[in-house]
Amino acid sequence: MSTHHLVMVRHGESTWNQENRFCGWFNGQLSEKGAEEARRGAQAVKDAKMEFDICYTSVLKRAIRTLWTILEGTDQMWLPVVRTWRLNKRHYGGLTGLNKAETAAKHGEEQVKIWRRSFDLPPPPMDEKHPYYSIISKERWYAGLKPGELPTCESLKDTIARALSFWNEEIAPQIKAGKRVLIAAHGNSLRGIVKHLEGMSEQATMEMNLPTGIPIVYELDHALKPTKPMRFLGDEETISKAMEAVAAQGKAK
Amino acid sequence: MSTHHLVMVRHGESTWNQENRFCGWFNGQLSEKGAEEARRGAQAVKDAKMEFDICYTSVLKRAIRTLWTILEGTDQMWLPVVRTWRLNKRHYGGLTGLNKAETAAKHGEEQVKIWRRSFDLPPPPMDEKHPYYSIISKERWYAGLKPGELPTCESLKDTIARALSFWNEEIAPQIKAGKRVLIAAHGNSLRGIVKHLEGMSEQATMEMNLPTGIPIVYELDHALKPTKPMRFLGDEETISKAMEAVAAQGKAK
Repeated sequence: MSTHHLVMVRHGESTWNQENRFCGWFNGQLSEKGAEEARRGAQAVKDAKMEFDICYTSVLKRAIRTLWTILEGTDQMWLPVVRTWRLNKRHYGGLTGLNKAETAAKHGEEQVKIWRRSFDLPPPPMDEKHPYYSIISKERWYAGLKPGELPTCESLKDTIARALSFWNEEIAPQIKAGKRVLIAAHGNSLRGIVKHLEGMSEQATMEMNLPTGIPIVYELDHALKPTKPMRFLGDEETISKAMEAVAAQGKAK
Repeated sequence: MSTHHLVMVRHGESTWNQENRFCGWFNGQLSEKGAEEARRGAQAVKDAKMEFDICYTSVLKRAIRTLWTILEGTDQMWLPVVRTWRLNKRHYGGLTGLNKAETAAKHGEEQVKIWRRSFDLPPPPMDEKHPYYSIISKERWYAGLKPGELPTCESLKDTIARALSFWNEEIAPQIKAGKRVLIAAHGNSLRGIVKHLEGMSEQATMEMNLPTGIPIVYELDHALKPTKPMRFLGDEETISKAMEAVAAQGKAK
C-alpha cells in the first residue's frame, strides 16, 4: 500500500547542453527550450493537483529555476526550499567546458569510451589551470564545505554517494514524517535516488536516462520502497514518449 | 563604526494596489509595474555589488517574487531563503478586499479616519462570512501555526509586534553572527524593523512610508544600532525622489 509520494524533476536543456559541452558544476542557465520544459512540467503538476510540503534542489541555477517555475505555476511559492550542493550535477573535473569533439581530440576516442562506460572511474581532476577553476571552486556557496569535501572531479559513483548521503540524512526522514517532497535537480543526482529506491545495479543505473522537465512520481511504502514503477506527469503524448525512451534505454547499445 | 549591513526591500505595486483595495493577507500578485520595480531594485543591488548570506521574506507571493527577481538579477539564486508569515503584510481583517470608497460606504468616513490614525486599534475582524475568509484562513501555510496565533485582523502595533518577534529570534542573531541579510517584505512589517532600529515613536512610525522596490541599506554597529541614516540603492534620480518622499512624510498632514 502506498503511503507516500515523491516527485522529482530533472531540469531541461541548458545553454551548454545546446552546445553539447560537459557542464558539470558550471552554473549554466536554462535555454529557452529548457525554460519551456519547466513550464510544461509545472502545468503537469498543476493538472495532477499535486501539493508539497518541502522542496529540495541543488545550488545550480538551472535546477533552481526549474523548481521556481513549478512553484510559481502551482501557486506554491511559499513552500520551504532547501538548496544543497549534494544534489548538484556530477562534477566533470577537467572535462568541464569541453564539447564532444574537443574531449576526443584532447583525450582520444578510446579514453572517452572508457569514461563513458565506467561507473567508478572519474574524469581527470579540474586543476588550478583549468579555465573554469576559479569560477567553480571559488563560488561562495562552497565556502561552507569541510576540507576535502569539495570535489575536483567525480565518477558517477561519487556523485551518487554524496546525493544519497543527503537523501538518507535529510530527505528520507522528511518523507517518513509525512512530508510531501518535490526535488528539482540533475540527471546524475536523481539517478542516484532512483538507483537506491529501485535497488538497481550499477550497469542499469548507467544505462538509465531520466526524461527532462517531466515530473517523475514514485509511490512509496513505509520503508520508502516503491509500490509501483515510476510514472510521469504530463499529457498523453509527452508521457508515452518518455516511457518509450526510458524503456528503450536497456536495449540501446 | 559600521560592522554589519542590512538590506530591505518593500515589494512594489500589486494588482490590488492598482485597484486601491485593502490587500492584507490576500495573496495578490505584483502588477507589471511592481515586477519592473523589482527588476530595477535588482539592478541597483547588482550595481552596488552587494552580496548576501541569507534572505528572509513573507509567505505572500508579491514579496517572494520581489526577492526572486533580486536573487536572479544578482546571480545569487543559491542563497538560503526563509519564508515566514511573521513578515507578512498587516492583516486588514474585515476590510480585506474593500477599496477606499467601499470602506467609507460601509463604515463611514469618520471611522476610516480613526483607523488610519490609530497605532493600536485594529480594523474589524475577518469573520467566517467574509468573502476571503476561506481563501486566507485555510491556506496551507498557516496550518502550522499554534492555536490563537492566526490573526483575524491586526492593528499596526500587532503587525509590528509579530514582525519584531521574528526579527529578535531569527534575523538579529544571524546578523550578529556576521551574516549579510536581505529582507524582501511589506510596508508594515518592514516599518516595524525600522521603528525598532531607529527607536522611533509610534507617531513617527505611522507617518513613515517606505519607498517600494528601492533597496534600503542600514549600516549597523555591534549592538545592531544604525551608524548612519538609512540610504537607498539606485540611480541618482530614483534615490533623490525616494529621499524627498520620505523627508516630506513628517510634514504632510
